[in-house]
Amino acid sequence: MKTHLPIARSDIHVHLTREHIEQLFGKGYELTKWQDLTIPGQFACRETVTVTGRLGSIEGVFVVGPARAYTQVEISFSNGLALGIDPPLRDSGDIEGSPGAVLHGTAGKVVLNKGVIAAKRHIHMHPKDAADFGVQDRQVVKIRVPGDRGLIFDNVTVRVSPENALEMHIDFDEGFAAGVEDFQLVELIR
Amino acid sequence: MKTHLPIARSDIHVHLTREHIEQLFGKGYELTKWQDLTIPGQFACRETVTVTGRLGSIEGVFVVGPARAYTQVEISFSNGLALGIDPPLRDSGDIEGSPGAVLHGTAGKVVLNKGVIAAKRHIHMHPKDAADFGVQDRQVVKIRVPGDRGLIFDNVTVRVSPENALEMHIDFDEGFAAGVEDFQLVELIR
Repeated sequence: MKTHLPIARSDIHVHLTREHIEQLFGKGYELTKWQDLTIPGQFACRETVTVTGRLGSIEGVFVVGPARAYTQVEISFSNGLALGIDPPLRDSGDIEGSPGAVLHGTAGKVVLNKGVIAAKRHIHMHPKDAADFGVQDRQVVKIRVPGDRGLIFDNVTVRVSPENALEMHIDFDEGFAAGVEDFQLVELIR
Repeated sequence: MKTHLPIARSDIHVHLTREHIEQLFGKGYELTKWQDLTIPGQFACRETVTVTGRLGSIEGVFVVGPARAYTQVEISFSNGLALGIDPPLRDSGDIEGSPGAVLHGTAGKVVLNKGVIAAKRHIHMHPKDAADFGVQDRQVVKIRVPGDRGLIFDNVTVRVSPENALEMHIDFDEGFAAGVEDFQLVELIR
């Protein structure tokens, strides 16, 4: 049975609908790939937006492509403090009742009335990885991070899909709290 | 045997020598108490400073009084990212070889060539608390935080002194990562 997997930090980023891409960057605009992400088909774009809340703005927030069916802004609680937005802790895609924000691009702005969340810690696995680790989709596990700031994350959700590549995702607050270096190996505890 | 104790987050703050207080706020200047901290004799001051690093500044950083024998700036790694300072993880007072910063006050500035650290997680205990919990000065323990972002902090140092009142201290990165509310109860695991 496998026990170790790579971990990586997600910085603040946005997913956009086709309609919002056009509002922010212009009619018929297509996102341009900057670099591939670990999840097959997902990529960080050259395009960035400014996210604005009640108390402040964060510039240079990267867009993750391709276009999605909903627009979602994933922030840390540190980002939330700077923006004046208190995000709910949610799985990606679960945006009902979440707060909004204003996004600015090179061609215009979008006023969101929902879509800002803090992402729950999770592990992406391909079905083959799930078999290797002896876990199932939606199973909640613990993850041990070694080191001076070592800790054990509780309530880590496993998400299994043929679209996934093996990686745990946390935000920068969690990364700093655990002294994580991106792509270091951490231990799954069932 | 006791098992639970309160936890609180420390925001970025500075401790100042008498000489640096005068450089920042004027000759013969005395710090003014804003509110007492949990540790007897320590207090947050009305005075604030601006901390500046290679990449940025943070304004409104509170001063903790009274004056100390050394000047120390305690920051989180998130603060370090904004300032362009990479702090070592240290116990309070252990500042040899740490990076410096520039401090600005109302009357002048101080250029530090050392003193910026990220504080190691720790628990302040009075000797009576140490007896109640069955632990000793400098013992390393684990702390369990409950909740949606629950986790177990490893490498938590117990610091026992007759000057102390019972409280665990973490920084804001750690607080956000664990979903901590100040003064909530957490569990000590020996």
